[in-house]
Amino acid sequence: MTNKQSHVPHDVRMQGFARRHTVQAALDWLDAQLHQLDAEDVPLRQAAGRVLVGPVASSVDIPGFDRGTMDGYAVVADCTEGATPYNRIPLKVVGNALPGSPFTGSVARGEAVRIMTGAPMPGGSDAVLPAEFVEACTGDATAAASSAPDSVVALATVSPGKNVGPRGEDIVAGTTVLESQRRLRPQDLGVMSSIGLSAARVVRRPRVRLVITGNELLPSGSAPHGFQITDANGPMLAALAERDGGIVDFPGLVRDEADAILAGLEADADVVIVSGGSSVGVEDLAPMLVARHGELVVHGIAMRPSSPTGLGTIGDRLIFLLPGNPVSALCAYDFFAGRAIRVLGGRPAQWPYRAVRGTLTRKISSPIGRLDYARVRLEDGHVEPLSVGGASVLSSTTRADGFVIVGDDSEGFPAGAGVDVWLYA
Amino acid sequence: MTNKQSHVPHDVRMQGFARRHTVQAALDWLDAQLHQLDAEDVPLRQAAGRVLVGPVASSVDIPGFDRGTMDGYAVVADCTEGATPYNRIPLKVVGNALPGSPFTGSVARGEAVRIMTGAPMPGGSDAVLPAEFVEACTGDATAAASSAPDSVVALATVSPGKNVGPRGEDIVAGTTVLESQRRLRPQDLGVMSSIGLSAARVVRRPRVRLVITGNELLPSGSAPHGFQITDANGPMLAALAERDGGIVDFPGLVRDEADAILAGLEADADVVIVSGGSSVGVEDLAPMLVARHGELVVHGIAMRPSSPTGLGTIGDRLIFLLPGNPVSALCAYDFFAGRAIRVLGGRPAQWPYRAVRGTLTRKISSPIGRLDYARVRLEDGHVEPLSVGGASVLSSTTRADGFVIVGDDSEGFPAGAGVDVWLYA
Repeated sequence: MTNKQSHVPHDVRMQGFARRHTVQAALDWLDAQLHQLDAEDVPLRQAAGRVLVGPVASSVDIPGFDRGTMDGYAVVADCTEGATPYNRIPLKVVGNALPGSPFTGSVARGEAVRIMTGAPMPGGSDAVLPAEFVEACTGDATAAASSAPDSVVALATVSPGKNVGPRGEDIVAGTTVLESQRRLRPQDLGVMSSIGLSAARVVRRPRVRLVITGNELLPSGSAPHGFQITDANGPMLAALAERDGGIVDFPGLVRDEADAILAGLEADADVVIVSGGSSVGVEDLAPMLVARHGELVVHGIAMRPSSPTGLGTIGDRLIFLLPGNPVSALCAYDFFAGRAIRVLGGRPAQWPYRAVRGTLTRKISSPIGRLDYARVRLEDGHVEPLSVGGASVLSSTTRADGFVIVGDDSEGFPAGAGVDVWLYA
Repeated sequence: MTNKQSHVPHDVRMQGFARRHTVQAALDWLDAQLHQLDAEDVPLRQAAGRVLVGPVASSVDIPGFDRGTMDGYAVVADCTEGATPYNRIPLKVVGNALPGSPFTGSVARGEAVRIMTGAPMPGGSDAVLPAEFVEACTGDATAAASSAPDSVVALATVSPGKNVGPRGEDIVAGTTVLESQRRLRPQDLGVMSSIGLSAARVVRRPRVRLVITGNELLPSGSAPHGFQITDANGPMLAALAERDGGIVDFPGLVRDEADAILAGLEADADVVIVSGGSSVGVEDLAPMLVARHGELVVHGIAMRPSSPTGLGTIGDRLIFLLPGNPVSALCAYDFFAGRAIRVLGGRPAQWPYRAVRGTLTRKISSPIGRLDYARVRLEDGHVEPLSVGGASVLSSTTRADGFVIVGDDSEGFPAGAGVDVWLYA
């Protein structure tokens, strides 16, 4: 491997980063690279949560016909004029109208068609007299026996249009029913289905390649033994990237060898996330490879954890070099890679975490010039910073309910301060 | 079909429900039926968002060895005692320790092993002297060339244990790392992987059968034409049930025929959701079938929309009879079916919607004794009730940002009132 590293400037090895970018500078560069991916058509059944490209307009009226909105009798409204329990107006029942079995004839004056909610209004009728205002003439207890009586009496007056849902009541043809960039909800799929669509035009999901490096790693599913540790970052990053809408390609661990890492960096993907080997040590191949085959724009960020994070591009791919320490990897994902995946996929850049307000039980200190990502517990509004040794303590992120950010212009917060806690989801 | 309906009491046909249950009574019955489903093992890679059954304890220490937490030189700490830039203490470099390639020998007094962050501490060493406090003796610009120098000088003192992450620093064997009933986060999968697990024991996902009835319906993907309408409920309910953790079986539309509906009601499922034919009209077969083949416990609920909702059981299946009107179906799903799916799957019963506070721009009225589910728009904290004709206006739920609940003990809210808006997700 020695020859592969011969291009490393001698003076950066183990000497740390020449200078660290601020988090804001790194985000500014990143945001300038991010543009929503192109569109694809997906079946409605798979479209929930996807982001619409272009508005959806209806080419049809919904409903496509006038329909009854009550169970009762479809009538010519003005034939019921003056009807009361003491002025019973007889109507001849000429048929039935059901949603799945409309009445195909026409209703004349003095006639009625028994109608169920949702059924098309029979021709000639213009109102529905609800069942409770109708009595059967046959002397039945009800006018609503399964076989309708031959004639009924109206006990009340209805005005034209009463209990009728007109054609286009829900949607008029030509109306935009959903705006572009909307994240599709279950009911949106219902509306799209009802206007006859079978697919949705949505933002393509970003393809995310994971390159998990580290010769000390055993694949997930192995018991750690000796000096080997079992990969935590692969399963974690895969779940994070999928949560943010990515399609994850994680073909397995990658040896700390330039050819293997480069193959990952040049994978057919929109985003490549490398974990491990992101710093400036002799084993840290990834930054050199990005610099050589693409552009390593940001390397070293004034934050804790995750300071050895690198950002760059190779061709059209966005490259994220995450430290191998799992907490650093999580933090760098949260700040940079997750944001990219969300925006490429049409989602908001913001964290998918909810922020709640709480009161610190102990101070959090952080030097000016460095942003800190402090894991905390939250109980009854009390925010307790977790005392954690290092970025390698992944269990701190499972013990934590979320994190508090200390900006790089702040020295931290005293005990008793009100802070925003971002709750892990 | 007439003979199939002969058991319907004559006096309920088209006469409405004998009495309506309160929403609370319906929920009380439902909650008494709900118990978390049994457990299953799923690969970690599929376990994000699933609900853990039983705690997860580690059988191993993480890390399983002492490791360096800085790049530098592993030394016997007290050999650096008194070292300063003006009292340079020479150390003989005897090897390299990398995370994937530990130093297998032992460090004696006066010796040092070059070590990278995360590498196992060499035998005999008890501290890491950071690279910036070391200078190469060879006169190189740095002591950190890719082939380490033969000897270095310490420019600072380290105390024993300094820059060492002890075995078990992250997790001590025997520790519970995740509690039962936890909904698994991405980083939890990382921790589970790191302790050697390949699978998670989680609550089984509820199997949900959709029975979408209505002879007037065309399957999703068809253009509505004539008096036929295209199914909105199937795609909507499938997406809702999947959002809440269900595994959906939706084999297609079901005719308004008793045998076909019964086959759905008796499907191999934990939950059966029927849409359409849930009321008391002659076409409404589902309630009679549930009453005949199981128990129809709740039928008719004092709410709007969704009053014709029915709840019951057939064998071990929970049956939800939802009105065919899409808004009613959505509301009844939100109140009853979704709650059941979430709880069966180990999730909280509560809505997965976020509530925000806003101020009504217009009054919402609702009679005492009836709960109302009012769709609203929310803009800059202003809550505008949507004027919607009927429950069939599904587009009201896409125009709406969420809904406001008016309890059955309330007559509603005046303009200017502060209300909770549940935001559709």
